[in-house]
Amino acid sequence: MKLVTMAHGGGGTRMQELLSQTVFPLLGGSATDAEDAAVLDLEAGRVAFTTDSFVVRPLFFPGGDIGKLAVCGTVNDLAMRGAKPLYLSLGLIIEEGLPFETLEQALTSVAEWAGRAGVRVVAGDTKVVERGKADGLFINTAGVGVVPEGRDVSITGARKGDALIINGYIGDHGVAVMTEREGFRFESGVVSDCAPLNVLTEAMFAAGKVGAMRDATRGGLGAVLKEMAAASGAAIEIEEGSLPIRDGVRAVCELLGFDPLYIANEGKLVASVPSGDENAVLEAMRSVEEGRDSVTIGRVIDGKPGEVVMVTKLGSRRLIRMPSGEQLPRIC
Amino acid sequence: MKLVTMAHGGGGTRMQELLSQTVFPLLGGSATDAEDAAVLDLEAGRVAFTTDSFVVRPLFFPGGDIGKLAVCGTVNDLAMRGAKPLYLSLGLIIEEGLPFETLEQALTSVAEWAGRAGVRVVAGDTKVVERGKADGLFINTAGVGVVPEGRDVSITGARKGDALIINGYIGDHGVAVMTEREGFRFESGVVSDCAPLNVLTEAMFAAGKVGAMRDATRGGLGAVLKEMAAASGAAIEIEEGSLPIRDGVRAVCELLGFDPLYIANEGKLVASVPSGDENAVLEAMRSVEEGRDSVTIGRVIDGKPGEVVMVTKLGSRRLIRMPSGEQLPRIC
Repeated sequence: MKLVTMAHGGGGTRMQELLSQTVFPLLGGSATDAEDAAVLDLEAGRVAFTTDSFVVRPLFFPGGDIGKLAVCGTVNDLAMRGAKPLYLSLGLIIEEGLPFETLEQALTSVAEWAGRAGVRVVAGDTKVVERGKADGLFINTAGVGVVPEGRDVSITGARKGDALIINGYIGDHGVAVMTEREGFRFESGVVSDCAPLNVLTEAMFAAGKVGAMRDATRGGLGAVLKEMAAASGAAIEIEEGSLPIRDGVRAVCELLGFDPLYIANEGKLVASVPSGDENAVLEAMRSVEEGRDSVTIGRVIDGKPGEVVMVTKLGSRRLIRMPSGEQLPRIC
Repeated sequence: MKLVTMAHGGGGTRMQELLSQTVFPLLGGSATDAEDAAVLDLEAGRVAFTTDSFVVRPLFFPGGDIGKLAVCGTVNDLAMRGAKPLYLSLGLIIEEGLPFETLEQALTSVAEWAGRAGVRVVAGDTKVVERGKADGLFINTAGVGVVPEGRDVSITGARKGDALIINGYIGDHGVAVMTEREGFRFESGVVSDCAPLNVLTEAMFAAGKVGAMRDATRGGLGAVLKEMAAASGAAIEIEEGSLPIRDGVRAVCELLGFDPLYIANEGKLVASVPSGDENAVLEAMRSVEEGRDSVTIGRVIDGKPGEVVMVTKLGSRRLIRMPSGEQLPRIC
């Protein structure tokens, strides 16, 4: 089995070999693309720019892997600002001894999902650290996109009366990674929801106004709602009964004492939409694969800015807090 | 001593605390800047985009630290394509147990050098991994810059007759990091050359034509010359006697059997300049702090494409090869 060695990060022939025989062929580039920076012709508009590092453990899990995550996570951060994602950079930190096969699988996944999301990997970097100084593979992606004229979407735009819409089931990603990692005996059957959301967001923008929008990753839906309420200076009320949660996620959470509200997603967004546009936006979302299960879960209400309240199935009102620690580390 | 815990990467209140009390204050942002992607108004021009991860060990060394490296490395990759560097993203991968003080020192350095290079950190991400799964701190930076109309600089532009110019002494960075890391008894007195080169490159563009340009980082001057010769389909000849090498670097290399030609730099560039512009460009370079010791080290000659030859002090001709492994791992 061929393994990555320290020499593959050294800037010499071994690194050229890694790039020209493994990285470029899989990502669709060539050795002559080896400039240190890409020069891009962008269409007119403001430019969105973001970054995320991915340290998920294990590297492969039901419904995804670190490569797919690294593409979708950054594509989604761009899409959440109203941008059309266009270009990605890829920074690899590899632990000495990683099988080439593992690296190739991750890069194949990067290429596949970049293609599906309509983005190109145009810049990259490879570092190798000694055995025991990393954990197999870490991937950083940064992304560049263009925000079409007239779009202004951010976490601050939730206004009183807006409907809060989510595009489907919560908690799938965190539960899928955790059950894979812990090697649970029982089969939860839960698969990560990891997906690029830029087709969905374009459908939403075409259908109506979107005030605030954010993907519900680390910290889950609960953290995102708290962030949105705080950043928008608004109060939010959601209905427990309206939250889409799969039986498998519910079962794992009940068994282990987790709250699905705080479990990470990698293909879910929450959007605040003026009530006049609610139905049109919902309909547009449901017409797209990533939005098939879209549903309104609550409203922006009159209340204490920053407060998020959940009306439980029993009719009581539960104050939603920011999670304080980490329920499930390294899910992205 | 306050240490980073897994909870600081969890997407909840601890992470908000880390961002709002440590990261944002040091980088000059505020907690309300916490969008997942920045939206930028760029001046007209093509956009340059690049990324690098930094895994240097130790984190602090004579003349620099991981934060300074992370800024300069990415600023320089943009500058090498003729771009004016404008914006950086910052991805932190922190090992659980890292003292806050260490993180603060690194971020203070990021802020200082971003300021000096005239770039703004506009997007970021923080991950924490368990003790033993990283090595203190890894930093990824991606960078965005604008390439003014009419500039076309890349590694492929070296042409027969061009002078090859370097902006000063080689090997300082690698030797400084290595002597610090290995705790050598002797004092080499060598300090890293880590520096942002965008002021220097602007002075060069103003003074004359620059064909090919590349910073001589991993793999050193030797690797860059080989890459330039190969990418430009040209042959290169350099004079050993003209290479600027400090006594301290020479001494350490002789003692340990290294070749300064392959030792990494973090503030050195090699440029091919048409001979008609050579003097004007050299003069412009010497007028800038980072170019004070600029000198012509060789020429692009008639010869086998990709070949790099060094005329030694004794007058013999030595064929320069690509380094095959890694002389000094983790110097960036």
